Amino acid sequence: MADISIVEKLVNKTDSKIVQIILDGVGDLFTANKKSPLEFALTPNLDELAIHSSLGLADPIFPGITPGSGPGHLALFGYDPIKNDIGRGVLEALGIGLTLRKNGLYARGNFCILDKDGIVVDRRAGRIPTEENAKICEKINKELETYKDIKVKIYPVKEHRFVAEFLGEELFADIDDADTEKVGIPYKYAIAQNEKSLKTTEMINKFIDFVLDIVKSDKVNGILLRGCSVDPGLITFDKKFKLTPAAIAQYPMYKGLASLVGMHLLPVGDKMEDLVETLKQYWNEEYDYFFFHVKKTDSYGEDGNFDGKVHIIEEFDKILPQILALRPDALLITGDHSTPCPMKSHSWHPVPLLIHSSFAREDNMVFNEKSCCTGSLSRIPAIYEIPLLLAHSGKLSKYGA
Amino acid sequence: MADISIVEKLVNKTDSKIVQIILDGVGDLFTANKKSPLEFALTPNLDELAIHSSLGLADPIFPGITPGSGPGHLALFGYDPIKNDIGRGVLEALGIGLTLRKNGLYARGNFCILDKDGIVVDRRAGRIPTEENAKICEKINKELETYKDIKVKIYPVKEHRFVAEFLGEELFADIDDADTEKVGIPYKYAIAQNEKSLKTTEMINKFIDFVLDIVKSDKVNGILLRGCSVDPGLITFDKKFKLTPAAIAQYPMYKGLASLVGMHLLPVGDKMEDLVETLKQYWNEEYDYFFFHVKKTDSYGEDGNFDGKVHIIEEFDKILPQILALRPDALLITGDHSTPCPMKSHSWHPVPLLIHSSFAREDNMVFNEKSCCTGSLSRIPAIYEIPLLLAHSGKLSKYGA
Repeated sequence: MADISIVEKLVNKTDSKIVQIILDGVGDLFTANKKSPLEFALTPNLDELAIHSSLGLADPIFPGITPGSGPGHLALFGYDPIKNDIGRGVLEALGIGLTLRKNGLYARGNFCILDKDGIVVDRRAGRIPTEENAKICEKINKELETYKDIKVKIYPVKEHRFVAEFLGEELFADIDDADTEKVGIPYKYAIAQNEKSLKTTEMINKFIDFVLDIVKSDKVNGILLRGCSVDPGLITFDKKFKLTPAAIAQYPMYKGLASLVGMHLLPVGDKMEDLVETLKQYWNEEYDYFFFHVKKTDSYGEDGNFDGKVHIIEEFDKILPQILALRPDALLITGDHSTPCPMKSHSWHPVPLLIHSSFAREDNMVFNEKSCCTGSLSRIPAIYEIPLLLAHSGKLSKYGA
Repeated sequence: MADISIVEKLVNKTDSKIVQIILDGVGDLFTANKKSPLEFALTPNLDELAIHSSLGLADPIFPGITPGSGPGHLALFGYDPIKNDIGRGVLEALGIGLTLRKNGLYARGNFCILDKDGIVVDRRAGRIPTEENAKICEKINKELETYKDIKVKIYPVKEHRFVAEFLGEELFADIDDADTEKVGIPYKYAIAQNEKSLKTTEMINKFIDFVLDIVKSDKVNGILLRGCSVDPGLITFDKKFKLTPAAIAQYPMYKGLASLVGMHLLPVGDKMEDLVETLKQYWNEEYDYFFFHVKKTDSYGEDGNFDGKVHIIEEFDKILPQILALRPDALLITGDHSTPCPMKSHSWHPVPLLIHSSFAREDNMVFNEKSCCTGSLSRIPAIYEIPLLLAHSGKLSKYGA
């Protein structure tokens, strides 16, 4: 990945304001009459904006790599998503809205089924209903209260998934998963990758034994733990880019990612209109950067729901004039990755990118996968978006004389 | 160059099949009626394929750098061609079809002419005919048989060129060339760059003395040696990308490069039709990646033969339907570099690139230097071709959650 650290030396605090809008998973393939959702949607406001903006394509990681939401957003925020690998446990914790604790270690858990010889026979415990999961978690947490050796709590996620939060001094996460990865082989405990993690690993394995004992007569009689991780301790946005950042996001995962880089989380309702209401409400506060996250473009992509995705893009188009009326000095619209409806999953395809400011070259085109190929921004790594926003809002000094 | 090592952690073994077609040196400038050979050629099959494919331009190294065949192919194979510098001696050995030996060290040789004071007066010995070269090599090899101290054999190449193959334990190649690089200066022996290479250098210089003694009364009375090198020991394709690779190539250099990264060399005849016959014959074997090499686009480029290059492209177009009929999951067509007819040499111009798969954005364009400028793949380093092929054939997991 590109090293953009020079930006940190060139950036200046100014009064100008930046809005970075993420239409999650907005990029797509061409399916309906050879059109993508962005092409198919009726978006008069976005069309008018695009005429006066610079367009291009962005790669969250590099060509061919499909990012998860974590790495995708880190790149958008100007952090190298390969050097800053956020652990699975931490991401899962953020996804359910936990606030990371400085002395916390997080693991992603699965409830599973073991046979009488301790062989893992179902890694997902038959995908138990979420309600059953919640009950098992409650039972285990209650027993754990009486267990003074280890401070740990588990939180139910969907179906068979949970998050384990361990608290303690000097927890280290260089630990191989307590997960067999496949069925038909004997149960596997966590393994320390180095001496530093020995104590933490011992604690995790004690916890596993404690839980196995609690559930031993139940149908769901085992747990698997993976992605042990701690707060990655990223340099915050204000230190890195001299910005006072605010996040307007409706889903836990994105709030969590924003808080990882030190953004203030603004209160916001559930609807599309609520996003812009919050932006308007906080526009004249001290914030000079707003992360504005629209989730459902991705959700409909994951469902393969072309019409749904089109509808969300059209809904976004309706609120766009209110955002423009605030006259941000630099405005960027893109996705954190593509989520093509025919694939029903994240993909590696580069994402349309739009930058609007009084310093932008006007490409006089529309905003979609096809036209963005020939835009003046060309195809760039997403990590350059923050430098571009800082430049277009007049916050970056010249490099060298 | 870009670091793509993350790919190695994300790749999965699957049943899908990849074909990477290299039309060697296919990129060109616009000469005949302002058209390139790709534009001028009648290619109905390629045109039809391109409509349903993603197009772009690829840089083997980076803008401005003209690659030789070695670095050009390393990039196509997903290896950093700057970090993995294949020595001149090894490349020359591969070019004449030698199989590299684990205990071998290879040098590119020139026969040359020295005056009575040992001054190099002709570095190419008047470009002697290849037959004369072969006779000199035979004479020297015969004498070398009686020389027990050093295991070495020389192999004639074209005109004044040869390859020297040294065999032994602990041979090290950090050696400055035994080559004056210009005429009019005294003969120069090999020089060790460090202590490790001292013994090897001593051996090489003993060999030089031995040969100088054999040829001292001949007209061609000297040798120059450069590019001492050993097998670079690249991580093989199966380890790096979990692929079982096969190479369909007709020329020694490309077979050699393919074998360097651990590809299986499939038997193939001399004609264009033979390439596709081999592909069909081995399609249902265990291979999931095929390197498919068409040489003559480059040869005609080097000759400045526009019509010849057009003809080869049209010949390739005729066999293309047979390749498509196999229904590869991901198909890529490009060159390892441009070889413009008016330049009669390799060049730095980026090379047209086409990717076809059911996951490719369809650009609805034709495959040539002009239209590829505006394709959805944009302009990318060639090292991303393997990640893109792995992605388009469904072999890459998501990075992060």
